[in-house]
Amino acid sequence: MTYSKKITATLKQKGLKEGQRIKIGVYEGLLMPSPEITGSPDYLIIKLDNGYNIGIKYTSKTKLEKSNTPEPEAIKQEYLYETMDQHVEKIEQAHSKPPIAILAVGGTIASKVDYKTGAVNAKLTARDLVRMVPELRRIATIKMDTLSEVMSEDMNHVHWQTLAKETAKQLNQGAEGVVITHGTDAMHFSSAALSFMLPKLPKPVVFTGSQRSPDRGSADSSMNLICSVHAAKNDVAEVGICMHAELDDNYCIYSRGTKVRKMHSTLRKAFRPINDYPLAKVWPSGRFQMTNRRVKFRSTEKAKTDTKFEPKVALIKAYPGSEPKLIDYLIKQGYKGIIIEGMALGHVPTQAKKSWIPHVKKAIQSGVPVIVTTQCYYGRVNPDVYTNLRILYYEAEAIPGADMLSETAYVKLGWVLGHVKSMKKVREMMLTNYAGELNARLEPRMFLY
Amino acid sequence: MTYSKKITATLKQKGLKEGQRIKIGVYEGLLMPSPEITGSPDYLIIKLDNGYNIGIKYTSKTKLEKSNTPEPEAIKQEYLYETMDQHVEKIEQAHSKPPIAILAVGGTIASKVDYKTGAVNAKLTARDLVRMVPELRRIATIKMDTLSEVMSEDMNHVHWQTLAKETAKQLNQGAEGVVITHGTDAMHFSSAALSFMLPKLPKPVVFTGSQRSPDRGSADSSMNLICSVHAAKNDVAEVGICMHAELDDNYCIYSRGTKVRKMHSTLRKAFRPINDYPLAKVWPSGRFQMTNRRVKFRSTEKAKTDTKFEPKVALIKAYPGSEPKLIDYLIKQGYKGIIIEGMALGHVPTQAKKSWIPHVKKAIQSGVPVIVTTQCYYGRVNPDVYTNLRILYYEAEAIPGADMLSETAYVKLGWVLGHVKSMKKVREMMLTNYAGELNARLEPRMFLY
Repeated sequence: MTYSKKITATLKQKGLKEGQRIKIGVYEGLLMPSPEITGSPDYLIIKLDNGYNIGIKYTSKTKLEKSNTPEPEAIKQEYLYETMDQHVEKIEQAHSKPPIAILAVGGTIASKVDYKTGAVNAKLTARDLVRMVPELRRIATIKMDTLSEVMSEDMNHVHWQTLAKETAKQLNQGAEGVVITHGTDAMHFSSAALSFMLPKLPKPVVFTGSQRSPDRGSADSSMNLICSVHAAKNDVAEVGICMHAELDDNYCIYSRGTKVRKMHSTLRKAFRPINDYPLAKVWPSGRFQMTNRRVKFRSTEKAKTDTKFEPKVALIKAYPGSEPKLIDYLIKQGYKGIIIEGMALGHVPTQAKKSWIPHVKKAIQSGVPVIVTTQCYYGRVNPDVYTNLRILYYEAEAIPGADMLSETAYVKLGWVLGHVKSMKKVREMMLTNYAGELNARLEPRMFLY
Repeated sequence: MTYSKKITATLKQKGLKEGQRIKIGVYEGLLMPSPEITGSPDYLIIKLDNGYNIGIKYTSKTKLEKSNTPEPEAIKQEYLYETMDQHVEKIEQAHSKPPIAILAVGGTIASKVDYKTGAVNAKLTARDLVRMVPELRRIATIKMDTLSEVMSEDMNHVHWQTLAKETAKQLNQGAEGVVITHGTDAMHFSSAALSFMLPKLPKPVVFTGSQRSPDRGSADSSMNLICSVHAAKNDVAEVGICMHAELDDNYCIYSRGTKVRKMHSTLRKAFRPINDYPLAKVWPSGRFQMTNRRVKFRSTEKAKTDTKFEPKVALIKAYPGSEPKLIDYLIKQGYKGIIIEGMALGHVPTQAKKSWIPHVKKAIQSGVPVIVTTQCYYGRVNPDVYTNLRILYYEAEAIPGADMLSETAYVKLGWVLGHVKSMKKVREMMLTNYAGELNARLEPRMFLY
């Protein structure tokens, strides 16, 4: 998309070009190359000195002029610095740019603000993303693909299957690693899904995204992308999420895809490992520091997929006063498996009419497995401590989710039921560690990491 | 309960008394006063020098003898120290022991191990608790009452109503504060309930419990109880939860009842403030350091209760692939209000058959309010950022839960619906701050506190 004819004519008439410093009323800054990120050809986009972009509707009354103010000192220094840097890079990096594939599936990192309503939509392609972060071209040979433009809350198992297959394809066609840009809200569901759907993964698959849209001054997308490409070049061959570790732009943490959760709705450091340490810390400079003793390393195997999946699985919560009849309803609706996010060590209400025990028992007797996780998130379900727990796990035969996240258990149960049906086999697979989702040894320092 | 006749006879015959140092085979330690905490008169209970209690079944073959080993050094010193301490206390504390009421409603803190199965049941009374922590008598004039013996997963609105009324009664009969010992699994539901049911509270109401049963060496109950009584003597007049701040026995944090959550299934420092700072840090010595700028102080008002409550409220989760028809089912079952724990900023799936939007819209049109909270827990729901959110909140008219915890929103909606029915009034009350549940200003340091 280009600016409207009117704007283009005015720019030509005044001898103004994209990238030049211009002035409209009190606003002064660089004229952005094209209105691509705003969605309307009638808005002039100026990058202010504070890093924010603003959109100004162009009318016949708009006074548009060349600015004679010099650019702020900081920008000039940055420019000089980069020239020297590039000079060194030319020599250094000629021999070390492994092929990395970037797959874009929407989300905030691929979003732009609609300057008319102020709301945000997923519209940028992988190509747009890389264009916005030119540094990527210096650290890897980037291959880009845009798979979809969905926001992450709308991802489902069909998206996961497509994504797993496309990822394996890229890895088998020579990519040394894959970076997936994804919406953050449900990124940990997708990372868990790919962890199971890409068994014995030979190379890194790194999910990343951003908590601020890339045309905002506080955007985290550049650093997240850069660190993720570094992680994808490295030797830890796991599906993981690589996002800001701190409030500041210092470094990212790369956490195992089955042991990570979005813990804050807005902060850039929202993604935290749960019941695990991060796999590694990754700096934008390329420094990669391993922080976990249990990891899988790169191998020369072919990437395989195993995407069989039963989508009729539900995740519900048990809490004081909760409705156990939801279980009966879900079974009537054809659900094949249920995750109960229970309390603490795996409790559900057990008293009188609100007791969950008979409903769980009935579900299991009718062949629908019930797995219980903890709504604490940190820590594990332990069927051995309290009398009520023993009834739930030993008499009603619910399956304890151990230290698995509710989200991971939900995705895993769908994947397990895609493979086996018998209660015995389901139990066995749910309690088998396929992708680091079960951690026998929790350490106190993992809490609130 | 006392020891069996056989045991009593043997003890008498050998001249052994409770509290004395005895020896059974390789086990040596203090004979515990009575088998009250084990539930069986046939088990001899010995407190080992490492602090653990063990139960040994008494048979005719059991060799029971007096131990001649002197008690370990540490125990002797402790005894001497305490004598001097008591001497000082006699003078100091004669004038400063305000009346504090302790209400026991079950939970691990009132639990004991069944030494036959190894499982734990709630059986101890308030009196037992105070007997186990004699220090309490030195810092306050304790009045005790046992309300029930339920584990917290089985608490419901009727328990909350009884507890609120009993708490107000104690405060109006002269207690300077109330400490409630409670199971930890659902303690934050109960603390939220009392926060709303005791409006304009004039004195502190402090929930506490323990993550380890009090007859275990690693028990946290003593320090939690001591710190809670200190908090109840102090000037911050809020409903809160006072539990271990750290892994070690250093100090406790006292967090607002509407802004706290059990975040770990087993660690002693499991209760963390969410989207808020703790009200205060409390040391076993009585030191009380306020850590929150927004608090309510003690007043001379009478305590009032407002316990009207509509229990037909449900809390469900929305996530990729989730079932929106649960809403229709709950409404058919007579539910009067629904909390959706949505993703991040308050998202629900919006695509095709799995879109939650039409179901939310229908619920609201039929008079059932729907409030959306975030399953991130930290951060807030914000209806203004994404296009999908605008549809949910401005077209379907869901009520954004702001920074309220799901658990708090669930309890609050029950309380609100106990008072008003019209959608307009419900919306107004849900977005009014009654008990610190809404925090206009979230700070990054509150994250993972």
